Amino acid sequence: MNSFNSKDHPHKRLNPLTNDWVLVSPHRSKRPWQGQVEKAIVDERPQYDPACYLCAGNERAGGHKNPDYKGTFVFTNDFSALMTETPEGEVNEGSLFQAKSESGICKVICFSENHSLTIPEMDVKDIRKVVDVWCEQFKELGGKDQINYVQIFENKGAIMGCSNPHPHGQIWSSSSVPVEPAKESETQKAYFEKHGRTLLSDYLQAELDKKERILVENDHFVALVPYWAVWPFETMIVSRRAVQNILQLTDAERDGLADIYKQLTVKYDNLFETSFAYSAGLHQAPTDGQDYPEWHLHMHFYPPLLRSATVKKFMVGYEMLATPQRDITAEQAAQRLRDLSDNHYKSTIN
Amino acid sequence: MNSFNSKDHPHKRLNPLTNDWVLVSPHRSKRPWQGQVEKAIVDERPQYDPACYLCAGNERAGGHKNPDYKGTFVFTNDFSALMTETPEGEVNEGSLFQAKSESGICKVICFSENHSLTIPEMDVKDIRKVVDVWCEQFKELGGKDQINYVQIFENKGAIMGCSNPHPHGQIWSSSSVPVEPAKESETQKAYFEKHGRTLLSDYLQAELDKKERILVENDHFVALVPYWAVWPFETMIVSRRAVQNILQLTDAERDGLADIYKQLTVKYDNLFETSFAYSAGLHQAPTDGQDYPEWHLHMHFYPPLLRSATVKKFMVGYEMLATPQRDITAEQAAQRLRDLSDNHYKSTIN
Ligand SMILES: O=P(O)(O)O[C@H]1O[C@H](CO)[C@@H](O)[C@H](O)[C@H]1O
Ligand SMILES: O=P(O)(O)O[C@H]1O[C@H](CO)[C@@H](O)[C@H](O)[C@H]1O
Repeated sequence: MNSFNSKDHPHKRLNPLTNDWVLVSPHRSKRPWQGQVEKAIVDERPQYDPACYLCAGNERAGGHKNPDYKGTFVFTNDFSALMTETPEGEVNEGSLFQAKSESGICKVICFSENHSLTIPEMDVKDIRKVVDVWCEQFKELGGKDQINYVQIFENKGAIMGCSNPHPHGQIWSSSSVPVEPAKESETQKAYFEKHGRTLLSDYLQAELDKKERILVENDHFVALVPYWAVWPFETMIVSRRAVQNILQLTDAERDGLADIYKQLTVKYDNLFETSFAYSAGLHQAPTDGQDYPEWHLHMHFYPPLLRSATVKKFMVGYEMLATPQRDITAEQAAQRLRDLSDNHYKSTIN
Repeated sequence: MNSFNSKDHPHKRLNPLTNDWVLVSPHRSKRPWQGQVEKAIVDERPQYDPACYLCAGNERAGGHKNPDYKGTFVFTNDFSALMTETPEGEVNEGSLFQAKSESGICKVICFSENHSLTIPEMDVKDIRKVVDVWCEQFKELGGKDQINYVQIFENKGAIMGCSNPHPHGQIWSSSSVPVEPAKESETQKAYFEKHGRTLLSDYLQAELDKKERILVENDHFVALVPYWAVWPFETMIVSRRAVQNILQLTDAERDGLADIYKQLTVKYDNLFETSFAYSAGLHQAPTDGQDYPEWHLHMHFYPPLLRSATVKKFMVGYEMLATPQRDITAEQAAQRLRDLSDNHYKSTIN
């Protein structure tokens, strides 16, 4: 029996941010696919679509009319999952029937008036406007007494449940800290108390030394495939400086975030020469007024595609009931993404 | 401000088996859907398909040939995610880079030689044969030294990543206890130590008293929508008797499991008059030779459809980054399923 190596042998890896494991089956990358294929993405869109409820000047649900905006535009979600008027209360029948009321505010952010664009096709200076809106919204929402967490995210692509191709993201802010950030709070706190540095500072430094999973960098941010990635091309953007939330970013760092957001998503689009679907979002410290020196700002990207523009990874059966599983290793995924051009495939001239 | 009630107001509920929360937004059920619609399911299939690698007598990947089986047929997965020959070893660079080798055995179980069937369309006596195979396999795999958990599951439908419509399920057995059963082990143990009864005995009794979320029953099993359900029509089958695994079932209880599996899936098919997709699987005690008096056998069903045969719930953005979210409440889902006929829509005569 030869000795174990994680390039060839099935193994599990630990995610130190959530303390969950992922099962990796490197030998299985050559499995043929006879299952469902997705519709190819039609990414030729007009700059203005009269039927789009996010385009400037158009009507939304409930008779609201969008202003004639240029750049970004923010409004309260017409079908908010959370609302401010929720009465407080709880169900507490022993340990088996427990519920708590939850209040919050849900917003939609249009990234641009141009219906045909996506982040990788936008100019960095226009993505910077999106970053500025995130900061404003984080400040406004996070500043409210009843809001203790602000979740900023983007669902991109119909395959990711996005019901409108107009470039946009969302913010759901809530009275309690959601499940995933709560897990990350605990692990980061335990690490910080032990080492006096943030978990992600040490992790980032180790990755920069190894270079194996680094994708793109600038002066302020690094994009990499985490060692414990679950989705085939899952990535993470980490700030070089340990900041707890986006309000602590300097002007240059805001530019850096816009720049790396574009660099990474250009790689994504180039992978299968398609508008690459994902859910992405920022993880930051809670906004309950406490201090969180252990928190380190980062952004997760969870993209579903596996081997082409139409074949995705299904997180089903074993993944739902037992442990998430992947075939291609984090290192192979990083290598493939790193090797791609830095220019968007649609814009390449020669 | 009127007082909180979980029928009308956004709230979160606790899953006592995993200690995770789900966000419920009951007011949001009327949200229109403009996003992706799935392909309608073509469920007219021949009894034998010459191109199907699971049909009797046909060739599989790697030149294996299926025998001329009738009833069930079990073989080792040609693209197993886990293998027996994995060398033992680990990566342990501080707390941030941790990996452990994982070995195991993956099997495929054909439920019937008849390519056109699905569980809700099979006779209970033929589903009983599937239950018997589960028992045999659980005994054989669980009896091996290096196998400490046996995960039996079924992915049904292309939308659930099932690459072949021939009625079949899978078993992935592994050297370590996977993430989900490990969580359920801890919570069940804590409950048992405190109360001297299994968590699910007490939960089942409370649900039988309330009746609100019960779907179908027989002498040995009950199917219900758990209070903490995440997927729109998520359900759970619980054994009335607190058994730790399927080998402890009596002959009559095995029949009972086959019967309730059919009853529940008939309801599912009737909901949207389509072959209803889901991932389902048994959760049972680990097979490491220890005693697990706290473990209570149950089967989870995670179906993706939301409002029709072609519109599913997307667990994306907020769900991946923050907390799983649902619109329709567990009680509304239970009511809808309960009200459906007990006869399969295709077989109704009058
Ligand atoms: O084994 P299959 O049917 O080829 O594959 C399916 O089930 C597996 C176990 O749930 C998943 O890991 C795969 O993503 C899914 O496509
Ligand atoms: O808010 P949308 O875009 O209508 O809806 C989408 O994102 C939400 C938040 O991630 C999800 O809960 C929905 O399932 C998804 O379809």
